[in-house]
Amino acid sequence: MPRLALAALAALSLSARPSPAKPPPDAAARLIGTALTDGMAWARLSELTDGIGPRLTGSPGAAAAVDWALRRLREDGLSAWTEPVKVPHGVRGEERAEAVLESGRRQPLAVTALGGSPGTPPGGIEAEVVEARSLEDLRALGDRARGRIVLFQHDMPAHGGYGDSVRLRSRGPAEAARAGAVGALVRSLATASLRDPHTGQTTFPAGAPAVPAAGISVEDAELLHRLVAKGPVRVKLVLGCGPGQPPEVDSANVVAEIRGREKPEEVVVLAAHLDSWDLATGAVDDGAGVAMVMEAMRAVARLGVAPRRTLRAVLYMNEEDGLSGGIAYADRHASELPRHVAALEADSGAARPLGFKVDAGGGAEAAVGRLAAPLAGIGATAVREGDGGADISPLRYAQVPALGLWQDTAHYFDWHHSGADTLDKVSPQELAASAAAVAAMGWTLAEAAETLPRPDPPTWPPWWKPSSPPVGAAPGGTGAAGTQAPTR
Amino acid sequence: MPRLALAALAALSLSARPSPAKPPPDAAARLIGTALTDGMAWARLSELTDGIGPRLTGSPGAAAAVDWALRRLREDGLSAWTEPVKVPHGVRGEERAEAVLESGRRQPLAVTALGGSPGTPPGGIEAEVVEARSLEDLRALGDRARGRIVLFQHDMPAHGGYGDSVRLRSRGPAEAARAGAVGALVRSLATASLRDPHTGQTTFPAGAPAVPAAGISVEDAELLHRLVAKGPVRVKLVLGCGPGQPPEVDSANVVAEIRGREKPEEVVVLAAHLDSWDLATGAVDDGAGVAMVMEAMRAVARLGVAPRRTLRAVLYMNEEDGLSGGIAYADRHASELPRHVAALEADSGAARPLGFKVDAGGGAEAAVGRLAAPLAGIGATAVREGDGGADISPLRYAQVPALGLWQDTAHYFDWHHSGADTLDKVSPQELAASAAAVAAMGWTLAEAAETLPRPDPPTWPPWWKPSSPPVGAAPGGTGAAGTQAPTR
Repeated sequence: MPRLALAALAALSLSARPSPAKPPPDAAARLIGTALTDGMAWARLSELTDGIGPRLTGSPGAAAAVDWALRRLREDGLSAWTEPVKVPHGVRGEERAEAVLESGRRQPLAVTALGGSPGTPPGGIEAEVVEARSLEDLRALGDRARGRIVLFQHDMPAHGGYGDSVRLRSRGPAEAARAGAVGALVRSLATASLRDPHTGQTTFPAGAPAVPAAGISVEDAELLHRLVAKGPVRVKLVLGCGPGQPPEVDSANVVAEIRGREKPEEVVVLAAHLDSWDLATGAVDDGAGVAMVMEAMRAVARLGVAPRRTLRAVLYMNEEDGLSGGIAYADRHASELPRHVAALEADSGAARPLGFKVDAGGGAEAAVGRLAAPLAGIGATAVREGDGGADISPLRYAQVPALGLWQDTAHYFDWHHSGADTLDKVSPQELAASAAAVAAMGWTLAEAAETLPRPDPPTWPPWWKPSSPPVGAAPGGTGAAGTQAPTR
Repeated sequence: MPRLALAALAALSLSARPSPAKPPPDAAARLIGTALTDGMAWARLSELTDGIGPRLTGSPGAAAAVDWALRRLREDGLSAWTEPVKVPHGVRGEERAEAVLESGRRQPLAVTALGGSPGTPPGGIEAEVVEARSLEDLRALGDRARGRIVLFQHDMPAHGGYGDSVRLRSRGPAEAARAGAVGALVRSLATASLRDPHTGQTTFPAGAPAVPAAGISVEDAELLHRLVAKGPVRVKLVLGCGPGQPPEVDSANVVAEIRGREKPEEVVVLAAHLDSWDLATGAVDDGAGVAMVMEAMRAVARLGVAPRRTLRAVLYMNEEDGLSGGIAYADRHASELPRHVAALEADSGAARPLGFKVDAGGGAEAAVGRLAAPLAGIGATAVREGDGGADISPLRYAQVPALGLWQDTAHYFDWHHSGADTLDKVSPQELAASAAAVAAMGWTLAEAAETLPRPDPPTWPPWWKPSSPPVGAAPGGTGAAGTQAPTR
């Protein structure tokens, strides 16, 4: 019998089976055992990365990932569907840069367009470089930024430095444009480098000036720093990025659920994002999260009994360059959100789980610590305050308790948003342990007698309101319609 | 007074000064002190890499390096000149590759042409991939290599693995061509990887078939390995490399010497190579060696007294892709070679010195150990059997004792022949220590009462005879006129 038919039969028999009144008392342990032994998270991640490849929003790879995820979730016996999302569609095009020395000699520079950057004219731009180590530094430059290319330098520490440095990438180019600069280069947010530039989203507020903006390898940022210390240096920058044709296309979130046996209207969301940057196959960002969530859902389905509440997987589209999927979900499900009792996102790589970040009401951290007890054996019981993840951030307006899987990120920023984000960076064992953590916590949140205290409304500026989703700009997007979304 | 005029005056006054009959007894210590304190090795390396950049044989960068080295050596008070070398001149052109999966999906592969590779037709080639882990493996494939692209896999250990693995790069493509393959990919000889392919020379014997050959990143070699395990995979390969116009150009070795005060006809050569691969600025391969040799000569010149024998720096051209400079020197100086008492090459990176590799007659290792005694304080007294270096290998036919600076190479192959071989990989302190080792050993070899025992004639096949220098092929060279030179 063909494999697909067998799988469909299995799904049918699962849903036809009468659900026992009570789940087994060791449900979390069973889920952990399944995730640690069946190799399915790795198998799925392999299909998504090696089999499909890069999944830039709006690209054929992203569309293939939607089809694949829907098919696999259904084969796993789940009720699954897609929900439409309009997404930006950009193209990268040619990209190159050179330092032009006073001697006339030219040094090639390794650069890659940031998402949201407009392209240069076909012949490129050329201007003198001026350095800034912070947004404050840029402001202090005053008129010295005018007509220049601003190079944003920083020393991102291996641990915990991303949050500070990312402001330079997300906001620096717009501020440089406002200061009269003609272009921006951002030293890669990288904790290891072999001359490989890292990309990521930059945001130009609607109506504000936009300039070509590229990530530059750590090595080349240091080269320019040394050269600038000796005298004026010009940089030639050619970016062929721009909006695709059409500049906006139809895409989708993929949603799958196991309906709650007692309180089906109460929902726990398990989140990850299907899209990736285009430079690599997005194994750690966020293929790994997709694989964990799919494995968690599959393992719960195999238990043969639904949790008390509805467990819903949402595999988001367009986390990287606009968050259209996150906004579309929140918008479409706005009326349900008061009964969304928790959302857990897995978007911190593929390495071993340490525990959970929590953004919820008073007492939530202690409560999550208790829920995480079954994960003691795999070392994933640590809890700290922290955001859940970009995809689920729109749910915070509805005060949905947010959790993020907290993982070992010692090497995450070696590869993040670069050409090196590939499957070989993933340990099957660590991935399986993280999938186990998502499965156990997802189950427990959906099964526990009590729900987590809801957080206060967010303190961050309201960058989104239901039914008015802004659309971010892709690599080569228009660069003018950005959001103030949390940057990843 | 302009700086150049001052320098010329200094040179003049140095050579005009009457040489004392005897050097100071602490000459080696003074040289070490100079090299460790004056920062000149770093300053010179900075000029060569940041200021001039990549120096592929036959390129404007290589020509600029020749001019620069000659000028700086003269400013340092040395007698310096160039010696002509005919060199290959190739161009890299476009290079890209994709894996074409059975599903029709395509995965970009990071590749870079090997030196000596012919280009593909403009539209590229496409063929199924077959793997080989050794040349023996390739032979065992028999007809299964025919019409295929052979992917050479290997596991190069971090320490000492290059010698074995490099055979796959230097000889693999030619053997694949002979087996009927249409192309070759060689897993990068890399001990770290962030999707950056490494280049290097490959050799197609004259008259034998040649096929397009590229280095492929470790990540992409592993991707292909995983894909091939699941079913047939095709690779599309586009290499725009080819001979430049003209395919051969005039270049030069740069030679500088301090004539011996007692036995000027006896010569100690200090060697490094000016050329680099084109992917980066060649800071560790071999800008560092050039800086060490220049600093050693400068420090000896500042002693104000010449050693007993002539100390001669040779900054070679075309080590990477043909060894034309090494051959030209041996050819031009053939009549002097019986009185070349030693040649010491610095071509193992920029890191701290451990001691010396020695290829000479019986008892030479112990003798070098005694000569290295002043280097105990910087930890560079270890001695082992080993080759001196590729540039000085033609001198072995004349049985010239060969030494190689033995350095810490723990990270050398992280960067070697890749885009990441840039100045930031160099520690000024470690570079200075290695320059001190070259200076002290160079002086001591030229000053010692005894010379090293000469080695037996080489046991390797005679790939070169004086006055018939073969010319290797550059990246994009003809691919047909290779040598059997030691591969670097």
